[in-house]
Amino acid sequence: MVPSARLLTPNGGAAAGPAPSRREETANGGGPDLAALRPTNRSRGKAQAGKPRKRAPIWNLQAAVFVSVVLNVGLLLQHYVNSTAPSHHHHQEHLQACPMHLDAGVGRNRRGRQEEPQLSMPKAGAPSTGKPAVTPDSVINLDHGDPTMFEEFWRGTGSAAEIVIPGWQTMSYFSDVGNVCWFLEPGLDHEVRRLHRLVGNAAVDGYHVLVGTGSTQLFMAALYALSPRTDSAAGAAPMSVVSTAPYYSSYPAVTDFLQSGLFRWAGDANTFKGDTYIELVCSPNNPDGAIREAVLSSESSIAVHDLAYYWPQYTAITKRADHDIMLFTVSKSTGHAGTRIGWALVKDRDVAKRMTKFIELNTIGVSKDSQLRAAKVLRAVSDAYELPETKEAHRLFDYGRRKMVERWSMLREAAAASGIFSLPEETSGFCNFTKEMAVTNPAFAWLRCDREDVEDCASFLRGHKILTRSGSQFGADPRYVRVSMLDRDDAYDIFVKRLSSLQ
Amino acid sequence: MVPSARLLTPNGGAAAGPAPSRREETANGGGPDLAALRPTNRSRGKAQAGKPRKRAPIWNLQAAVFVSVVLNVGLLLQHYVNSTAPSHHHHQEHLQACPMHLDAGVGRNRRGRQEEPQLSMPKAGAPSTGKPAVTPDSVINLDHGDPTMFEEFWRGTGSAAEIVIPGWQTMSYFSDVGNVCWFLEPGLDHEVRRLHRLVGNAAVDGYHVLVGTGSTQLFMAALYALSPRTDSAAGAAPMSVVSTAPYYSSYPAVTDFLQSGLFRWAGDANTFKGDTYIELVCSPNNPDGAIREAVLSSESSIAVHDLAYYWPQYTAITKRADHDIMLFTVSKSTGHAGTRIGWALVKDRDVAKRMTKFIELNTIGVSKDSQLRAAKVLRAVSDAYELPETKEAHRLFDYGRRKMVERWSMLREAAAASGIFSLPEETSGFCNFTKEMAVTNPAFAWLRCDREDVEDCASFLRGHKILTRSGSQFGADPRYVRVSMLDRDDAYDIFVKRLSSLQ
Repeated sequence: MVPSARLLTPNGGAAAGPAPSRREETANGGGPDLAALRPTNRSRGKAQAGKPRKRAPIWNLQAAVFVSVVLNVGLLLQHYVNSTAPSHHHHQEHLQACPMHLDAGVGRNRRGRQEEPQLSMPKAGAPSTGKPAVTPDSVINLDHGDPTMFEEFWRGTGSAAEIVIPGWQTMSYFSDVGNVCWFLEPGLDHEVRRLHRLVGNAAVDGYHVLVGTGSTQLFMAALYALSPRTDSAAGAAPMSVVSTAPYYSSYPAVTDFLQSGLFRWAGDANTFKGDTYIELVCSPNNPDGAIREAVLSSESSIAVHDLAYYWPQYTAITKRADHDIMLFTVSKSTGHAGTRIGWALVKDRDVAKRMTKFIELNTIGVSKDSQLRAAKVLRAVSDAYELPETKEAHRLFDYGRRKMVERWSMLREAAAASGIFSLPEETSGFCNFTKEMAVTNPAFAWLRCDREDVEDCASFLRGHKILTRSGSQFGADPRYVRVSMLDRDDAYDIFVKRLSSLQ
Repeated sequence: MVPSARLLTPNGGAAAGPAPSRREETANGGGPDLAALRPTNRSRGKAQAGKPRKRAPIWNLQAAVFVSVVLNVGLLLQHYVNSTAPSHHHHQEHLQACPMHLDAGVGRNRRGRQEEPQLSMPKAGAPSTGKPAVTPDSVINLDHGDPTMFEEFWRGTGSAAEIVIPGWQTMSYFSDVGNVCWFLEPGLDHEVRRLHRLVGNAAVDGYHVLVGTGSTQLFMAALYALSPRTDSAAGAAPMSVVSTAPYYSSYPAVTDFLQSGLFRWAGDANTFKGDTYIELVCSPNNPDGAIREAVLSSESSIAVHDLAYYWPQYTAITKRADHDIMLFTVSKSTGHAGTRIGWALVKDRDVAKRMTKFIELNTIGVSKDSQLRAAKVLRAVSDAYELPETKEAHRLFDYGRRKMVERWSMLREAAAASGIFSLPEETSGFCNFTKEMAVTNPAFAWLRCDREDVEDCASFLRGHKILTRSGSQFGADPRYVRVSMLDRDDAYDIFVKRLSSLQ
């Protein structure tokens, strides 16, 4: 037990080494982009000077009296452009004044970071609450799809989705030794099938249900399962992975970050030449909400359908999807991104086994606690539609649709008031779930800046303290940006108001 | 939304395609190996004929009156040898008669598998309980390190480690936007540091705490972080990854399963030629419990210390470890394998950032639910030693040490009674935590079969319905096997009794 060999950093020890590759930078995909959320030196200066208050109701915009720690995020623009990783020079992990703990609003301790002051401790185990509250002057970060809009709904459901886990429960690696997916909690399997039957958005009979740590892990598992088991060291080419532009920015990043010899990102499906490939089909599409079908087909091709947004709050449920591999996630269906639970519906047994093997090698299964929670959440969703005694206010898709209709209406008005933005045209269809016509209300807005002198819409908006993701990250024109429609009301309201004032 | 392109299985659609590579087979590492756990046709036949009973106390060996579904696992020996994946031909996902749900003992439903009968549903959300109960005739599976021994302890702690999660809690991707590890719950960070300070097994001041989906994900993250960011397509060689044999069987499997261009398994550290490499140092070592130090050192080498077993129930805490990268997991420290929470203590900020980036790309963070649970569990452990009002029976390490001493004593007696097995010599040291001399009680027994005609100890034991992991999977002599010492009492007792009778 002696000290180990010297530490060699990947950059040769240089604090400001070469920037990571562009692909890596764009990696956050539907997930978070962090540089813009971190407090700058200047805002921290302010924050540390003030005394944090206790137990502020952070959900209430009017009560957001604290100095916003993200006020000066505009200073980080250059870092934001160059890297999603935190800056080496800004000591960004310094404390925020904003209490993020509902019942522990006295700041946080960063013991172990020698350069930082010792503050009082949070109540041990107090759960986090996500991004700090915003004020009318805040930088509004809608770069990622953090689905905190749904918190309000779940607060309204009381204990319907609450879970209690005793200390001795689900300690084993195993959930179901008789199942292909041996780490899948039977209760989650049951509720996944039940919800799809209720909504009618995907076939489940004859399918294996697999669970993943979010659908991102299942996406990697699918690539692993579908790529031929050739030996790259022997010169075999990796499997090509394609998707029609604009495609979800995570697809290239996640495909390539380990430089796997099994699969390799090959770009826009529309320009791909070749017969052997995996086609990623996201429908409704991230970023633009379009209903998609596979564009390629050959003897040796296979599609993976990412149906994360195929739920009634976002689009009409027009067909019961029955593709070979379909991916879903609680992040977008119920808003529980922090729970990190996705599932796959997989027809072929061998593919299901290979995907399971990937997750076994990657993380030896998936958190049982989150599986049990996801099962409880999905059960609450189905119960609200199927049990007679439940309240209408507890119907997730009704709530979600109402919110999304309202938000899209606000956004279209703001774009019209501004006069310099355009949005995808509204489409509609008959929804088999609601039994009525429904317009599409995508989880992201694919916003185009029409001002002739603006070639980079993301930079333009950033100049007005609105953080979005550039179209260039989706294989598209940088006059477009993707804007999350799922943030909390306070942030969304400020965004819309600010957008409408731009000329 | 039309059907996707045809499904191409990796094996060209053949149900009995080529076996996976040897490396892949050995992948389960400290984690599960499943083929042996699955019921065979024969046992299923029995199971379905009988009527499962409700609410049987499955912890009690005497109450294990159900037909064991694993009785005939011996029939699967060939599959066990050739693959950890389930057999294609045995329809192994059929129902088990053994109720694995404490409050839903009426079997399980497998809807969506057309070939299977419809049985009654489990109570939705009912948690799993791990492997089926055993009887004196059962195959005893000690191949993996499933730490269910600790369930008894946690049952005894009442609500000390119980957690309640409301439906609206921790829905965001973000836990702590000011932290390098932005998805780390501050409460877990706090309890990890507190526990290490209590036990004295690792330094935490000046370290970043990172959370992973088990320590396996952090192991991959470390490889990613420490490998030079070269372009393998341009011909750059991947970073070599080595460990002294016998090494944990997961290391080669996890390093190589994606055929990354960044890193590559290079075998036993003792025979490695070269200057640039990552050395994995597991101490106490999996599989043999030895206290290890890095054996290599050069200008361009770096060690990753896997300290999963460096806790007082297994070994004397002789030093406060202060290596550059140290990995830990609740699976082995508290027994919560199903929670899938590991953590890394990392000195260098850039390495911490790169590891965080890996987890962001791989799974967009780590389950908040499991983090909160792990924090509560670690808190209960520390509370029992630090708070005056807690009971002695609630002291985890006292319990763990007592159990391990007892089990090792039983095992040594059984080996002596048999006469054909040998075990590592007992070592001891002064434990800074308990303030007394303590012998080592490794979480695995590294058992050697001394009978001259037995060249493959795992096969020999399998013939007596004891499943272990062959030494060959650890880069060692197949006369050795690794045996888990952490299973439930009933299984362990049967194992020891059976072992003592072998001649």
